[in-house]
Amino acid sequence: MDNKKLDILRGDINSLDDKILDLLKQRAEIVTEIGEQKKSNTDVVDIEREQKVLNRLLQNSKAKYSKDTIVRIWREIFQASTKLQQNNSSLITTKRSINSITVYKGGKSSVTGKDNIIKLSSNENSYGPSPKVLDHINKSETLLNSHRYPSIDGIKLREKIAITHNLNVNRIILGCGSDETLLFAALAFCQDGDEIIHAKHGFEMYSIITKIVGATSKLIEESTNYTIDVNSILKQVTPSTKIIYIANPNNPTGTYLSRTEIVNLLNNLPKHIVVVLDGAYAEYVLKDDYDSGFSLTEEFENIIMTRTFSKVYGLAALRIGWCYSSEKVANILNKVKGPFNTQTISQEIAMLALEDKEYLKEVVDNNHKVKKWFEDELKKIDIKCGSSEGNFSFIQTSEKKAKEISAHLTNEGIIVRQLDSYGLPNCLRVTIGTQDEMIATIESLKKIA
Amino acid sequence: MDNKKLDILRGDINSLDDKILDLLKQRAEIVTEIGEQKKSNTDVVDIEREQKVLNRLLQNSKAKYSKDTIVRIWREIFQASTKLQQNNSSLITTKRSINSITVYKGGKSSVTGKDNIIKLSSNENSYGPSPKVLDHINKSETLLNSHRYPSIDGIKLREKIAITHNLNVNRIILGCGSDETLLFAALAFCQDGDEIIHAKHGFEMYSIITKIVGATSKLIEESTNYTIDVNSILKQVTPSTKIIYIANPNNPTGTYLSRTEIVNLLNNLPKHIVVVLDGAYAEYVLKDDYDSGFSLTEEFENIIMTRTFSKVYGLAALRIGWCYSSEKVANILNKVKGPFNTQTISQEIAMLALEDKEYLKEVVDNNHKVKKWFEDELKKIDIKCGSSEGNFSFIQTSEKKAKEISAHLTNEGIIVRQLDSYGLPNCLRVTIGTQDEMIATIESLKKIA
Repeated sequence: MDNKKLDILRGDINSLDDKILDLLKQRAEIVTEIGEQKKSNTDVVDIEREQKVLNRLLQNSKAKYSKDTIVRIWREIFQASTKLQQNNSSLITTKRSINSITVYKGGKSSVTGKDNIIKLSSNENSYGPSPKVLDHINKSETLLNSHRYPSIDGIKLREKIAITHNLNVNRIILGCGSDETLLFAALAFCQDGDEIIHAKHGFEMYSIITKIVGATSKLIEESTNYTIDVNSILKQVTPSTKIIYIANPNNPTGTYLSRTEIVNLLNNLPKHIVVVLDGAYAEYVLKDDYDSGFSLTEEFENIIMTRTFSKVYGLAALRIGWCYSSEKVANILNKVKGPFNTQTISQEIAMLALEDKEYLKEVVDNNHKVKKWFEDELKKIDIKCGSSEGNFSFIQTSEKKAKEISAHLTNEGIIVRQLDSYGLPNCLRVTIGTQDEMIATIESLKKIA
Repeated sequence: MDNKKLDILRGDINSLDDKILDLLKQRAEIVTEIGEQKKSNTDVVDIEREQKVLNRLLQNSKAKYSKDTIVRIWREIFQASTKLQQNNSSLITTKRSINSITVYKGGKSSVTGKDNIIKLSSNENSYGPSPKVLDHINKSETLLNSHRYPSIDGIKLREKIAITHNLNVNRIILGCGSDETLLFAALAFCQDGDEIIHAKHGFEMYSIITKIVGATSKLIEESTNYTIDVNSILKQVTPSTKIIYIANPNNPTGTYLSRTEIVNLLNNLPKHIVVVLDGAYAEYVLKDDYDSGFSLTEEFENIIMTRTFSKVYGLAALRIGWCYSSEKVANILNKVKGPFNTQTISQEIAMLALEDKEYLKEVVDNNHKVKKWFEDELKKIDIKCGSSEGNFSFIQTSEKKAKEISAHLTNEGIIVRQLDSYGLPNCLRVTIGTQDEMIATIESLKKIA
């Protein structure tokens, strides 16, 4: 292209830009007029109205620019419009989505005035980590090197994981808990104004992460018994969808998707949408149609599978999780991962935990045996449970009854999780602890049955 | 406002939106035409041209929408234009800024074939942590509770920090290293298309974080001897500036800003811009005009001060840092902080380290004594150093000589940091180790002097 031609085209762009600028000015004036008429500041954000505007635009748009670009531009305009309509007394502001974050609270871990409590509120492994791990640590010299930075990418632990699961070490990314790997996905593949799909009743971090990256949550509707199916996920897909978080099995409902269902989902999804399969409880599932392996990452470039040392391995204190994906996706995730995000001693302990496969099997077997016993006993005292594949039972009752059970158990030093923060105040999640802990829980429940 | 009036205004907005959409369509067509004429794909992104377009728009804009909004919208248009001009063979994409991240590498920590190395490449504390810390850990029962989640917000450690420094516990936020608190600031206050100011030659994470959040780096120009001043910072401020990262003292140059200079900066800055003062090496500075306290956070709502346990406390392996700010800013940062981002045993050890103030003083005194001796010796063999306030010396030489020194020392089992990745291939950063380590380094350097 000769420079003269280029100059002409650039001149045309400038003149288009000026026109757009002028239209934005006019738009802001109308928005201000509307804002001045509105009585209160609290209802300034009208998500429904914004969605209508977007739908209309997406129908009318014939632009070569992709539809997600159009949505991002207008969501920026919406945000600017909100600011015009608010009397911001404060100078320091944050993007709209972050304002609405409710800080994650986690399960309670103490009861005032009680020394001996049974903690069944955070899906921890009550049996603790492998005794071989603890034995080693007392002899470890790692602490003597506390002044040295950890391995920047935890290569030795990643090698150990690769050998254990027969994986490619370069496609394993460690996180400060698997939570952090969930964030990496959003940071890498989402922008302000994009959309993330996740369960209506799922791990709270999905909606928090969505807001952190300035995206919008699209919620998967459940059918009866809190199960989700592939169609209910596909229904939420739009040109702005960038990520789908699926906990498999789901927390707190305990439901799962079979391998066939996941393949079906991936086959019906645009290939640029990244599906994050959160496997925090994967090791506990014993169903034949559940895929506990990683072969889906060979078939699909757009899948990320996560695992954690916080649950079945009994190492929640150490903050180690990881994810596995295609090499392409792993390389991108690695760019948004901070250096030194996992701790030296945690890396070392996690390596030891991977070795004790017998202990892992024992924990899983116990979980199933004790869960079955616990849920049978609940049935006898007329407390209804969903079918849960995790290390927890999902109790469905009334809001009043859920509150009553939770208060009564707390009073007896047994902490369970009433699921208000999951939008399920009528439900309770009870971690399956040791046989003794569950017997104590049933005995206590019988008092109010 | 009656509904009829509202409907009319909304109709006006719809018609403006249609016009904008149409102009965007026309713009995309011209962009495509330009793209088709361009010969290669590699030079599709023309940052200079984009900046010219932005400057013109900012001059012409009379919109009520804020100028940063205008910049964000056009940066989105630029990104969409880039995509139109690229032949994207791949379906999975990430935002433009993330593509350009070069993964942080950190200092080397081993030399092939050498068992006993002296590591002076990562500004670690060669003396290790307080012996009282190590003594305690062997008796600790914390590891027995590895299956329990850590304190969600590290309240006990935060209380200890608050008492130690006479601070408000609610305004302290812990990070997985102070690195993570730097990321929190960007996540909280920056959006795709905003700008972050940081030193041209500074900690690599500033530019990586800028790219992670989709912002653009504006670099502070240095005067002679790599110092920066307040005016050179103010020169980079635009309506899109959201954050300024200042390492004080700076790594790797070792320079610092006095309290007066920082107050001067803050007084001349719009109050919505958040200044992050990275104090990773703060404890080492002994200059009278340097402010090692936190009182600036009382005077200015828009300042974040960070500290780490990785340097003077000798606990780099544990991944603990923290930041302090106004309550308003702390509350926002807390929303983007993941739960459980620091490890149980790390929280406990950091608490112990805070208690041993004598040891801290000893480490700082040793650093100064040994640094002075080391730099005097360097002078004797004609190696020039900048004036560094950290636990490292900043050697300024030629690229050839820097490479030669680094290769020679490595060969002798002494690892220092040639500063290629900081854009300073003519410089070296040498951590001040123990007296013995520095004697060995000087003896080795004499061989090639």
